Amino acid sequence: MPQYRPPLRDMQFVLHELIRVTDAFKEMPAHAETDVETVNAVLEEAGKFAAEVVFPLNQAGDRAGCTLDPVTHEVRTPPGYREAYRQYVDGGWASLSCDTAHGGQGLPQTVNQCLYEMLNSASQAWTMYPGLSHGAYECLHAHGTPEQKATYLPRLTSGEWTGTMCLTESHCGTDLGLLRTKAEPLPDGSWRLTGNKIFISAGEHDMAANIVHLVLARLPDAPAGSRGISLFVVPKFRVRADGSLGERNAIHCGGLEHKMGIHGNATAQMVLDGAVGTLVGEPHKGLQAMFVMMNAARLGVGMQSLGLTEVAYQNAVAYARERQQMRSLTGPKAPELPADPILVHPDVRKMLLTARAYAEGGRALCVHTALLLDQELHHPDEDVRRAAADEVALLTPIVKAFLTDNGWIATSHCMQVFGGHGYIAEWGMEQYVRDARINMIYEGTNTIQSLDLLGRKVLGDNGRKLKAFGRRITEFAEDAGVREDMQEFINPLADLGDKVSKLTLELGMKGMGSADEVGAAAVDYLRVVGHLVFAYLWARMAMVALDRQAEGDAFYTAKLHTARFYFAKLLPETAGLIRSARAGASPLMAMDATLF
Amino acid sequence: MPQYRPPLRDMQFVLHELIRVTDAFKEMPAHAETDVETVNAVLEEAGKFAAEVVFPLNQAGDRAGCTLDPVTHEVRTPPGYREAYRQYVDGGWASLSCDTAHGGQGLPQTVNQCLYEMLNSASQAWTMYPGLSHGAYECLHAHGTPEQKATYLPRLTSGEWTGTMCLTESHCGTDLGLLRTKAEPLPDGSWRLTGNKIFISAGEHDMAANIVHLVLARLPDAPAGSRGISLFVVPKFRVRADGSLGERNAIHCGGLEHKMGIHGNATAQMVLDGAVGTLVGEPHKGLQAMFVMMNAARLGVGMQSLGLTEVAYQNAVAYARERQQMRSLTGPKAPELPADPILVHPDVRKMLLTARAYAEGGRALCVHTALLLDQELHHPDEDVRRAAADEVALLTPIVKAFLTDNGWIATSHCMQVFGGHGYIAEWGMEQYVRDARINMIYEGTNTIQSLDLLGRKVLGDNGRKLKAFGRRITEFAEDAGVREDMQEFINPLADLGDKVSKLTLELGMKGMGSADEVGAAAVDYLRVVGHLVFAYLWARMAMVALDRQAEGDAFYTAKLHTARFYFAKLLPETAGLIRSARAGASPLMAMDATLF
Repeated sequence: MPQYRPPLRDMQFVLHELIRVTDAFKEMPAHAETDVETVNAVLEEAGKFAAEVVFPLNQAGDRAGCTLDPVTHEVRTPPGYREAYRQYVDGGWASLSCDTAHGGQGLPQTVNQCLYEMLNSASQAWTMYPGLSHGAYECLHAHGTPEQKATYLPRLTSGEWTGTMCLTESHCGTDLGLLRTKAEPLPDGSWRLTGNKIFISAGEHDMAANIVHLVLARLPDAPAGSRGISLFVVPKFRVRADGSLGERNAIHCGGLEHKMGIHGNATAQMVLDGAVGTLVGEPHKGLQAMFVMMNAARLGVGMQSLGLTEVAYQNAVAYARERQQMRSLTGPKAPELPADPILVHPDVRKMLLTARAYAEGGRALCVHTALLLDQELHHPDEDVRRAAADEVALLTPIVKAFLTDNGWIATSHCMQVFGGHGYIAEWGMEQYVRDARINMIYEGTNTIQSLDLLGRKVLGDNGRKLKAFGRRITEFAEDAGVREDMQEFINPLADLGDKVSKLTLELGMKGMGSADEVGAAAVDYLRVVGHLVFAYLWARMAMVALDRQAEGDAFYTAKLHTARFYFAKLLPETAGLIRSARAGASPLMAMDATLF
Repeated sequence: MPQYRPPLRDMQFVLHELIRVTDAFKEMPAHAETDVETVNAVLEEAGKFAAEVVFPLNQAGDRAGCTLDPVTHEVRTPPGYREAYRQYVDGGWASLSCDTAHGGQGLPQTVNQCLYEMLNSASQAWTMYPGLSHGAYECLHAHGTPEQKATYLPRLTSGEWTGTMCLTESHCGTDLGLLRTKAEPLPDGSWRLTGNKIFISAGEHDMAANIVHLVLARLPDAPAGSRGISLFVVPKFRVRADGSLGERNAIHCGGLEHKMGIHGNATAQMVLDGAVGTLVGEPHKGLQAMFVMMNAARLGVGMQSLGLTEVAYQNAVAYARERQQMRSLTGPKAPELPADPILVHPDVRKMLLTARAYAEGGRALCVHTALLLDQELHHPDEDVRRAAADEVALLTPIVKAFLTDNGWIATSHCMQVFGGHGYIAEWGMEQYVRDARINMIYEGTNTIQSLDLLGRKVLGDNGRKLKAFGRRITEFAEDAGVREDMQEFINPLADLGDKVSKLTLELGMKGMGSADEVGAAAVDYLRVVGHLVFAYLWARMAMVALDRQAEGDAFYTAKLHTARFYFAKLLPETAGLIRSARAGASPLMAMDATLF
């Protein structure tokens, strides 16, 4: 019943008119040849694949879920998942942004990011299978031994094998320092792993010939806590020297979770019963190595919610055009019909525009961040690489938490547009809400993201990264501030920038008194900074739209209206958030634990 | 896995210390005998019933759902539902606040309200069966003919039969003026009804011998729109003159919806294929008659979210005490454990206190409103009755929309406290979120509630009802404002009161220019007024707690902390809402419909 049309026009706007990514690609030898035509052609094909192959599986996949054979421990994915994955591999989509040294196509992350947005709109549950593989690819690419790279990267690149990240245990998710899975040395230099992992997304399935598990465990001599964790690669089937599949490894799926959403993805309990693996990176330094994967995954989670926001918006608009209910408050707008389409009602528009502004703002932020990733990896100038890395570090918790909170709000609004029908499964809207909910939890809860932002990324380096981003805003505001037609955007942007500076200073001072002051304000703070980033991007988008409006393309008129909506109706949230952030820790911490 | 303990102490606080309901009862001859001991004894038993009989059915009911036999059109409810309902009827719970003239116990609505809060905490899906019956009882009690009353009220009172409200059709929910179900006269004065209804909660089930459907339909000569709708009572089994069950009526369940939540309640498509019914009230005035039921139902929906907020809070606190993860930001609090209980973390506390403040504030508001209902019905002084009716009219959309929005926020926060486990069905938390979501939609979406509040209840009578409520606040603020220890509560309360007055005036002026200005601001406005009501009740609760704190009961200390939390961390939301409300309709309405 739902529909999905890849938002190619808006992607092109963000890529080529707002961020001008191909100008930036030209500075990087690895991507200098990637021109506008190439990017557009790839995304057009990617959109077809997402809309025509993956999207039709989403609702049925939610209903069918995954099933575990208790005897063989094999998992069956929903009907069509396997076949779609075969097409994905055959189409070369898995290898899009992978290293050419391992068979990849070497396209920029920026392009891959747009592919993933569309795949996530089509089906988050399905997309998690290739998504986690790509994370495993990146981790081994960064930290694997030459042998591990030779064995695993070509197959992860092609998509012939998939990957997972096995971190969580039942007693620890956020606090991985508590984990208990053991690794004991074997004479040949490999390791024997024993333990139980839970919540392993894509942990077992029938879509690929082998599954490459990246597993955190402790060596026998490991110090306690998070400094005693090592990373291992543990394949489902052991790999012979010639690269062919050998015997079944002693890692199996012991159960599947029944979840609120993402039913099509197998959330597996994984039992390691003396499974053989090899060490990735140095002993006891597994958490640092895994963070390469985690950071990529955090950006990926933000994109998941971007995808859900976009598809929910599209469906809610279509419904609001068709559904006729009541007359406009200012008199009939479609007198020939028994009632007006509900798109005439102000609050229906408010719910729709909220989703639209969050989708388009989120898309701009994701492309902006993806380009920084490309620069971090491939720019010839070390200063540019370092600055890009710093900005990625600053933006990662914002992409993860701000976009996923927004996705929760937006999908819920889009469901609300459907009235009672939104609550009924067949319309597909409630699935978007259920799927969106996990994104606020996994890969570090949004509270953890907020502590990462305020505690580590901002206060942890005396505001250096934030100031660098602030300079971006100041420069833009000075340039654009001379324009009369930009005042409505520049003024609130500059005002919020000032407020963020003051708030940061205040929280830094308070935090020196008690770290709980940081913890008490962090969630509000992240949302305020998220709005600052969005206000900056929306002001920039408005300027492009103002400049091109005269061409008569209605696209720019819509962009301007959405920008105005964002500043009028969404940005004001910061007024309450700043007050709450400034109210301090005492209202939270003063109450004795026994009184809860 | 979840747990539930009836919040008797807090109910007693609200009933006897805050609102002093039995003092108010003494002024009403019908309730003068209902003393503190009676109220407490009834609620203690009600709590046992809710916690011991209903609560254990909730999770299994969600999993099992309802099943329709396609041949007999009979519906099977989840295991145990039927037996629990039998105990409910046998225990006399159905008749608690019903008229003694029809076999009821005649207890105040105020007491019934507390029963329902606990039943909803125990299981919203189950509680909807008796809840809708009670609505049908109230509608027939107010509008039924003497024969209808004699036939139906004793059985609805006892709970032997249940009731429904059949309003929605697939093409109309909000806009009932579009409905098509037809009623044609029969020679004996009864009517033959033909049509299709959808979303009929408790529409078919196996819990009672008969189901009394209240059905909206059109007479052959009905004018178009909402002025041409009549109300009928259509029993599942026709009732003979002697009161015994006669032949099966031609109304049956044609299908059950697959929904996001409340799986245990049968959401039925009802087919009327020449079903025989009798007219309730006057022809073409069915919508007014049904509004008696709708208003009761709207208050009931607010209570549903109150119940969910309370039970979600209880479980999240229990988890936050047990779950050990990371150390407190200010150093270990439980050094003997491998990690601190997560209750030490500021944002965990913020999520918990949000749910707690919304639960306790919501409880105060529901009891306050229920007492007004009792006064409206039973106070000997006509002026008091009228003032109570006005205040109920003002508060009804707030109870419905503010409490259900809060319930959505609070259940989601409580789920978040569980981290990844919150997303897993077995823990029970995600069910509360899914169940809570319908409450923002049914019985008039929260947008409709906001238009009812701002358009009809506030601006529609020139702010008279709002001013009356404002006088309550002013009087309290003047009394309490002389106290030093109340300044922290009175100042923000008075400040918000001023802002609401100004905002109301501004919106009234703008609304005269264009009704879309009302529609654009209404949702923000309702939430601002909701906070004003909560701020008033929280300030009153704080004063009681301050007065009794010296007694050494930690209950009052907790109440004070929660009040301070509410003012510091939740009330500030109004700053952003007021800005958004004042931003006007243009950011919503300026964009052409084709551009969405």
